[in-house]
Amino acid sequence: MCFYCMTERFTIALDVMGGDHGPDVVLPAALRALAKRDNLDLLLVGDQGMIEKKLLAFGGKSGDRLQIQNASQCVDMDELPSHALRFKKDSSMRIAINMVKEGRAQSCVSAGNTGALMATARYVLKTLPGIDRPAICTSLPSKTGHTWVLDLGANIDSSSEHLFQFALMGSVLARAVDGNENPRVGLLNIGEEEIKGNETIKEAARLLSGSELNYIGFIEGDDIYSGKVDVVACDGFVGNIALKSSEGIAQIISYYMKREFTRNILTRLAGLAALPVLKAFRKAIDPRRYNGASLLGLRGSVIKSHGGADVLAFTNAILVSAVVAEQNVPQLISSQLQAILAERQAV
Amino acid sequence: MCFYCMTERFTIALDVMGGDHGPDVVLPAALRALAKRDNLDLLLVGDQGMIEKKLLAFGGKSGDRLQIQNASQCVDMDELPSHALRFKKDSSMRIAINMVKEGRAQSCVSAGNTGALMATARYVLKTLPGIDRPAICTSLPSKTGHTWVLDLGANIDSSSEHLFQFALMGSVLARAVDGNENPRVGLLNIGEEEIKGNETIKEAARLLSGSELNYIGFIEGDDIYSGKVDVVACDGFVGNIALKSSEGIAQIISYYMKREFTRNILTRLAGLAALPVLKAFRKAIDPRRYNGASLLGLRGSVIKSHGGADVLAFTNAILVSAVVAEQNVPQLISSQLQAILAERQAV
Repeated sequence: MCFYCMTERFTIALDVMGGDHGPDVVLPAALRALAKRDNLDLLLVGDQGMIEKKLLAFGGKSGDRLQIQNASQCVDMDELPSHALRFKKDSSMRIAINMVKEGRAQSCVSAGNTGALMATARYVLKTLPGIDRPAICTSLPSKTGHTWVLDLGANIDSSSEHLFQFALMGSVLARAVDGNENPRVGLLNIGEEEIKGNETIKEAARLLSGSELNYIGFIEGDDIYSGKVDVVACDGFVGNIALKSSEGIAQIISYYMKREFTRNILTRLAGLAALPVLKAFRKAIDPRRYNGASLLGLRGSVIKSHGGADVLAFTNAILVSAVVAEQNVPQLISSQLQAILAERQAV
Repeated sequence: MCFYCMTERFTIALDVMGGDHGPDVVLPAALRALAKRDNLDLLLVGDQGMIEKKLLAFGGKSGDRLQIQNASQCVDMDELPSHALRFKKDSSMRIAINMVKEGRAQSCVSAGNTGALMATARYVLKTLPGIDRPAICTSLPSKTGHTWVLDLGANIDSSSEHLFQFALMGSVLARAVDGNENPRVGLLNIGEEEIKGNETIKEAARLLSGSELNYIGFIEGDDIYSGKVDVVACDGFVGNIALKSSEGIAQIISYYMKREFTRNILTRLAGLAALPVLKAFRKAIDPRRYNGASLLGLRGSVIKSHGGADVLAFTNAILVSAVVAEQNVPQLISSQLQAILAERQAV
């Protein structure tokens, strides 16, 4: 707590070496995030000498709000999680998570290898009591704002109980981050009545209907973006395919649009006339604004940035991390889960 | 066979009563399709008196190339497949499929209830020997042309053998429709190495690797649209979610684009300047051009149109149906499958 401004201060640990661009993206993003949030301190984890040198080049330097924690190793983007877990105990990723475990940081951000991040976070921080598996959760744009979707690939073959836990964790996140008191929850399913989902999904629907969550029923893939619900719960295999397919079609739409506007001199002129509008449009659907996925269900906060994130995208992941830390999302999930479990036992 | 032009003639049966708009879409689409393909005859199935009256209103009339087959019932869009199967034996959908069974048509098209269409087609036509479950297959736009994706929702919890059959059927379709001699096949999976797919997908990969299909490996959701493969095989639950999610993001992109171009008088003027380009762009990604999904694996050809199809979209489904009939896709699938099964037994 700052004595003067009476606001709580937070420290976020950043895995400087992770992602496709490492320090070249993480360091300028760190400087931007510090400028944006007064109550934020950052802990840069990685090769200390290199970080100090690069920081200067980016016009920053270490100090009270920007400390450096040395780490001698880094996890490769294609390294097996089991290998990273065993042989990379002094990696920037591992040390960043250790900082959360030791309470020196309230959250951490990494753009590194997702599998290794998940495995290391789970090993170091452990899952919350009552949570079997952590889940990856992010927000995606909708007509009315955004929708929280989980799991996005941490788990395959999720049970109905897992789907229920995903719905619960997503609801807590929506409440904490958006201040949405009663987030609407949907279960991702397919449309055909007769074969509507397998037994797992039907059982998850029963669990959700009997709970205090604001469960509104099955939804189809397009409802991720329609604004019909605030939280979408699904198995990680399905969620990952939905996310990647969406990215694929968005890319091809941009590709076709660019192709049409660069076809000849007339279309180029038309593009020039429409430039401010096209820019505003691109900003509205910019995926970088949605960078920063939470690994939920752990005894500590870990945020995964897209591996290819640029400075804007990584800054966004740091800001997501700050909100999750500020709201103490892991603690909220834990207490709500305990209440539900106690209620179930009482019945 | 036409004695004069030496081209084979084909008859397609149309379920006139199916879909959100019934005859108001099917009849004008039928007239358009006839004008587009000389060797095509159509059999309009539905309420004969109504069809004759409406045909006149659309400037057409029945004749050699446009015959009418009466049907006294129609299947509702939300009717349970089992109910339709039992109580709608004289429905336009059922009679259209009967026409294929009896050899009076070489294919049929319906925009009606998907579940009922699938159940009726399966009951009337039966699956091909060696095929356990029919699959829904359609082409989706890619950077280099299009990609065939199946299954899109006919099956959930597909086994590895089913995934293999989907890959085979998709390959036959790509070969028949696109003249692509060696279509590249991918299995839809998620990206994380350590948890890359469940046992079912891994076993399907082994089956495909050992076959004569041009299997190139696992692909992720965005590769549906990247042009990396020609055929994507996946479980129907996953395929349906991928398709619907893609539709959802495409809708929201249009929505944001419209919003930006109609924000004020200046942006409206910019939109006017860019209108021809925006139109060309919209045409390139127009989902109506991809209307017409094949139910593959049956002893006859059945094409499913989107329920909300307009005239352009339904015309497209008729043209897809014509190509599938012309190439005799069910027969091709059957003979290729028999060859593979014989080879397996020989091993």
